[in-house]
Amino acid sequence: MSCSFGEKYKITIFGQSHSEAIGVVIDGIPAGIKLDMEKILAFMARRAPGGKAYATRRNESDYPNIVSGVVDGVTCGAPLCAVIVNSDQHSSDYNKLKYLPRPSHADFAAYMKHNGFNDIRGGGNFSGRMTAPMCFAGAVAMQILQEKGITVGAHISSIAGIADSSFDPVNVSADELNEIKVKSFPVIDGEKGEEMLAEIEKARMSLDSVGGVIECAAVGLKPGIGEPVFDGMENVISSAVFGVPAVKGIEFGNGFACTKLRGSENNDPFVMDGDEVKTLTNNHGGILGGISSGMPIIFRVAMKPTASVSVEQRTVNLKEKKEENLVIGGRHDPCIVPRAVPCIEAATAIAIINLL
Amino acid sequence: MSCSFGEKYKITIFGQSHSEAIGVVIDGIPAGIKLDMEKILAFMARRAPGGKAYATRRNESDYPNIVSGVVDGVTCGAPLCAVIVNSDQHSSDYNKLKYLPRPSHADFAAYMKHNGFNDIRGGGNFSGRMTAPMCFAGAVAMQILQEKGITVGAHISSIAGIADSSFDPVNVSADELNEIKVKSFPVIDGEKGEEMLAEIEKARMSLDSVGGVIECAAVGLKPGIGEPVFDGMENVISSAVFGVPAVKGIEFGNGFACTKLRGSENNDPFVMDGDEVKTLTNNHGGILGGISSGMPIIFRVAMKPTASVSVEQRTVNLKEKKEENLVIGGRHDPCIVPRAVPCIEAATAIAIINLL
Amino acid sequence: MSCSFGEKYKITIFGQSHSEAIGVVIDGIPAGIKLDMEKILAFMARRAPGGKAYATRRNESDYPNIVSGVVDGVTCGAPLCAVIVNSDQHSSDYNKLKYLPRPSHADFAAYMKHNGFNDIRGGGNFSGRMTAPMCFAGAVAMQILQEKGITVGAHISSIAGIADSSFDPVNVSADELNEIKVKSFPVIDGEKGEEMLAEIEKARMSLDSVGGVIECAAVGLKPGIGEPVFDGMENVISSAVFGVPAVKGIEFGNGFACTKLRGSENNDPFVMDGDEVKTLTNNHGGILGGISSGMPIIFRVAMKPTASVSVEQRTVNLKEKKEENLVIGGRHDPCIVPRAVPCIEAATAIAIINLL
Amino acid sequence: MSCSFGEKYKITIFGQSHSEAIGVVIDGIPAGIKLDMEKILAFMARRAPGGKAYATRRNESDYPNIVSGVVDGVTCGAPLCAVIVNSDQHSSDYNKLKYLPRPSHADFAAYMKHNGFNDIRGGGNFSGRMTAPMCFAGAVAMQILQEKGITVGAHISSIAGIADSSFDPVNVSADELNEIKVKSFPVIDGEKGEEMLAEIEKARMSLDSVGGVIECAAVGLKPGIGEPVFDGMENVISSAVFGVPAVKGIEFGNGFACTKLRGSENNDPFVMDGDEVKTLTNNHGGILGGISSGMPIIFRVAMKPTASVSVEQRTVNLKEKKEENLVIGGRHDPCIVPRAVPCIEAATAIAIINLL
Repeated sequence: MSCSFGEKYKITIFGQSHSEAIGVVIDGIPAGIKLDMEKILAFMARRAPGGKAYATRRNESDYPNIVSGVVDGVTCGAPLCAVIVNSDQHSSDYNKLKYLPRPSHADFAAYMKHNGFNDIRGGGNFSGRMTAPMCFAGAVAMQILQEKGITVGAHISSIAGIADSSFDPVNVSADELNEIKVKSFPVIDGEKGEEMLAEIEKARMSLDSVGGVIECAAVGLKPGIGEPVFDGMENVISSAVFGVPAVKGIEFGNGFACTKLRGSENNDPFVMDGDEVKTLTNNHGGILGGISSGMPIIFRVAMKPTASVSVEQRTVNLKEKKEENLVIGGRHDPCIVPRAVPCIEAATAIAIINLL
Repeated sequence: MSCSFGEKYKITIFGQSHSEAIGVVIDGIPAGIKLDMEKILAFMARRAPGGKAYATRRNESDYPNIVSGVVDGVTCGAPLCAVIVNSDQHSSDYNKLKYLPRPSHADFAAYMKHNGFNDIRGGGNFSGRMTAPMCFAGAVAMQILQEKGITVGAHISSIAGIADSSFDPVNVSADELNEIKVKSFPVIDGEKGEEMLAEIEKARMSLDSVGGVIECAAVGLKPGIGEPVFDGMENVISSAVFGVPAVKGIEFGNGFACTKLRGSENNDPFVMDGDEVKTLTNNHGGILGGISSGMPIIFRVAMKPTASVSVEQRTVNLKEKKEENLVIGGRHDPCIVPRAVPCIEAATAIAIINLL
Repeated sequence: MSCSFGEKYKITIFGQSHSEAIGVVIDGIPAGIKLDMEKILAFMARRAPGGKAYATRRNESDYPNIVSGVVDGVTCGAPLCAVIVNSDQHSSDYNKLKYLPRPSHADFAAYMKHNGFNDIRGGGNFSGRMTAPMCFAGAVAMQILQEKGITVGAHISSIAGIADSSFDPVNVSADELNEIKVKSFPVIDGEKGEEMLAEIEKARMSLDSVGGVIECAAVGLKPGIGEPVFDGMENVISSAVFGVPAVKGIEFGNGFACTKLRGSENNDPFVMDGDEVKTLTNNHGGILGGISSGMPIIFRVAMKPTASVSVEQRTVNLKEKKEENLVIGGRHDPCIVPRAVPCIEAATAIAIINLL
Repeated sequence: MSCSFGEKYKITIFGQSHSEAIGVVIDGIPAGIKLDMEKILAFMARRAPGGKAYATRRNESDYPNIVSGVVDGVTCGAPLCAVIVNSDQHSSDYNKLKYLPRPSHADFAAYMKHNGFNDIRGGGNFSGRMTAPMCFAGAVAMQILQEKGITVGAHISSIAGIADSSFDPVNVSADELNEIKVKSFPVIDGEKGEEMLAEIEKARMSLDSVGGVIECAAVGLKPGIGEPVFDGMENVISSAVFGVPAVKGIEFGNGFACTKLRGSENNDPFVMDGDEVKTLTNNHGGILGGISSGMPIIFRVAMKPTASVSVEQRTVNLKEKKEENLVIGGRHDPCIVPRAVPCIEAATAIAIINLL
């Protein structure tokens, strides 16, 4: 079923962009955890559009009201449900889209899947808005992971081809990951960040959009986590990460680049680091045979340019079965990559907590 | 659990490289299907090493003995179990590896996971040999898909950076996919294939290995297949494909390349093709919001160079906790990409049949 | 995970007796179904305490607010979430119970499971109140089943040993099942119902409680539904039905009685009924080898007497590790069997819809 | 999927009564366990027909050949597959049954489910023979449980209405459970056992069969095991136990009898036993709210009389759509209850190990 993920820390997401509410049920949280709501809200704020230049001007209200699973702020072992009420939605913006699928959106596929009964308003349950409850569940997972010494963090690796520095795959640290989280624009190299912002602004001025790559790391995992074959770390992380809209690719370690290397170049030699076994390089991205090696988990995610652009586009009228032109109104992010950074972190945290 | 995949067509793989047998249980095959064993064996032969220049010289016997689920060659609705007996294994080759993990192999991670009780012989259940039962299950899935008008096929997209032509993402046909399947070296452009083979031979002569990229397509899917969020086609296909050893990345449609495009360039316009809705281009790889659009499914998979190279490598002795050098003996593929082509097809077919 | 059930029609229940809200997410409802809210509310009202003599005097408000999955009253294919706000709860009633587990309640087991962090108020998520969202999900399932010609219905088979008539296992009809649903006290034989009510009243006057048996039937299932071994109809129905608090046993067909019969007496002869195959008797309860035979599904469920009785009971103080006496205050049903009837129907409908 | 059970200790059973082999894949066995094959074979022998008076005269060979998951007799963390080759099967006995469903067997239901392609020979995968791999998986589970101090055991509670003594629900001990396991006829009261054997012999002489009840206990479980609602101990145990053919009912604690008691009689007072909390009585069967209470788990299972009786029976010819009489030949158990005792133990062990 599409809205659930995981066995040990099972999340079930519900809602559509313009339904009365969206939310998530989390089953499998241990009892006795005092939720750090300040940290959870700070995490969710990174995803929220809140007036950032590169983000939509909509005023989404993302407060997660925890209606079950908690007594006096402490988890009680029962499933935790957080409900986020939808408000300030301009459903009328979408009325004319009912039979005019927006290119690169799920509209047409959803129409065919649900025989025309799909909720077209705001993209329905295919909307990026569904990442709000995902981020809530991810923030809770991160708090639990933190207590086990595991930190997940990500940054914008590139936007429109402008590349940030990369994480050092061998030495990336929890501190480094946490420092990026408090930046308003999550890059390592601030100057590159400025260039990216300029490129996003250019795209906005052209009523267009740009895509990018997010690099994510997880540090603090002991070796031996994950299962072979179908429940390896790569299988499970990719399975969660493709749950974030607009993701079109994922690569672990040096990924596609390793396909041009020889084995002798790509293999990471094992070395002793005091009493612990490490690898000298980390082309494998911390995962061997689906199992953690104890080195940092490193992967990159390709995010397509926002599908909602305001230039005129060709589409078809599904009712009248004829071609038509379409101009999408409303307010849309010219680049969703910055806001997607915490979403990728959340998906990763949810994947990892299920593998422990 | 790591050895099972799918809900509707659930496969459960068992065995290790050097255990008495390997095999697969398939639960969910409809009753009444006359298995085309000739086709199944032909498919599995594409994966088998059988004396090809680029493959290991081992003489694996891959005959799948169907011990249940079939009466007189026709499925009876009960789980089908196929057992492949292991033979001609040189377990002694691996004895010295018990405490000397091979770089880029799962040895170390498995040792840590299983407290040193992991089966080191031939890589145990992390071995590429486990793709034999996966290919059996994939071949059966393909026969069922074929009857529904769906064809899955793949080719070598590149080896060591030498690129084959690409599938035409809009017009790739079942015939084209089937033609490649009968080639001894699965490329579109035979000359590029020769170059690749030369590069593989060079790597072999240097006791080294090379990696590559596989491009896979599926045609004939109606629009509307897949589920939003966590059970989208991308989630499920990637989850299956990372079950093939050595896969380090996957990208759908134009994948990482789309991150450099603007939305107006990347969006695929909808057009009418007679009574049917198509897209003019197929940057989305046939998947929108996790749901099939009716256009060909297209994705590429990054495969790392074979980890087993015969040049001397640095590793550690896990027992004595000190560094050591290692020379891997035995017979190994200098490039597993060609033999991995049917494995990727199999994983894809298994993923798709579970989504229908 | 405990709060989810099913693969095709997956329900995820959340909430505790005294949490802000309780509810259910249903994933897998087909798009395009116009929910019959009147029928759903009527069904839920059968479970609600609403001032019936045999029920608690609490004034539970059970209105299911559908916050997602529906557009203009019609399902849109996205997960449907219904939220029921808790109100009129006297949490202080439970304060003293924190360390004084009520006999026959889950208090002690939950305390041990959750290290004392369990929500003790009203039984937390072990409360019978959790059957309200289950009934909502069951009512929706029943509407879908109805369209497929399947009807589920139940009656009180006995209370405190006073037995109602039984369904005719061969001829029980949808009409008969539906007739019982509109009765305020769901028995076949009204006189027996009066006797039961008198017995319940006697128990109430003694500050005590009584248990009973519910008989449930499902008609309209075609033969061939269910899976062998672990996903048979008996496995799946019992797995759902034990989700209703206070259920301690289940038997299909003639159940425990068949253990005293000879095979020649217990076997149900096959006969032709026009063109259809039927059985002359229905000792097998409509299920053979886990698969539906086309005869009515018949089973009975044992429900223990309400654990909350107001007579003084022996218990222990978990903090001080000493024995203590306990008098449970608050308002409690002297018999939950009548209100459990729709709950058993709901669990059955949810089980069956997952098997189709 | 029907052939798999469990998430942590997942078993996947394959095979039909007369297929080339039957077997089981177990995923989730920890690495490093030295399998006690002698104990496993002794356990399986209790299920095997081996010439016992009350059992079929067939000479089934039940040796489980472990083809994977083990290195030198020690588990290696990879899925364990055990294959049992079928031999000495008289398939011709079943040829005439193809269109003549045996009353009370799965034949008709399976025929309808699989469109006539079901394997009719020996009952196909509905055969009691499928309990052989289940017993293997149960024996392995029991070995692991034993190391955690948990013992599962069962006895014949009644046959044809002749009742054995019951386990003392409060004081039943591991020793007592183990003593019954070495008895050739597993009852507490040997004299009652003689009466039962006489009754079975009488049934055999009349070409008929008898059913019975099995009582099962599990001791050594700490309080707090199990999940509320749908993954409680009752849900999971019943879900496994109904996987044993011929089971038609299950009741926990005092089960159906509690429906005639008042709450004050049925509630089990908590008392201190040294530092531990116990209950004075155990009407709840060791399970409260789906969670273990620390008291012995107690439940009873109803098993119908063997469906295969040799007296003439009425049935229908599915091909010719007319009624016919049937005399079943071959060799069949006049009572399967004694051989089912270890099967119930196995199912219970598999259920419990998945709940830990």
